[in-house]
Amino acid sequence: MAEVFGKRVREVRHERGWTQEQLAFEAGVKRAYLSEVENGQRNVSLDVVEKLAKALGVGPEALVAE
Amino acid sequence: MAEVFGKRVREVRHERGWTQEQLAFEAGVKRAYLSEVENGQRNVSLDVVEKLAKALGVGPEALVAE
Repeated sequence: MAEVFGKRVREVRHERGWTQEQLAFEAGVKRAYLSEVENGQRNVSLDVVEKLAKALGVGPEALVAE
Repeated sequence: MAEVFGKRVREVRHERGWTQEQLAFEAGVKRAYLSEVENGQRNVSLDVVEKLAKALGVGPEALVAE
């Protein structure tokens, strides 16, 4: 599931035309951490799902749908 | 977000007519932990979201939609 989530975060970030730095700043997370999340290397918790979804302006379900 | 997730898990569990014991067994988690999750007291990670969604027979998005 981490892979699906990471891929969706990257897709939506690209749709916004944002760099990882921009999304990391908006979501209040470290860029290196975001890179690991996007690479499916992090089993994130719901509060991180919420932070990233809010920063990207989508509902959390948009980032976890398979 | 933990509250939203917990509420959804409980709603879908009730739709299935399952007890907490049954869902905990199907998802491979402890009943006491599931009770805390349903009460919004746990900031669960994506692998728990996946386990509970699979056990309930729904997509993970169904449990995180606000």
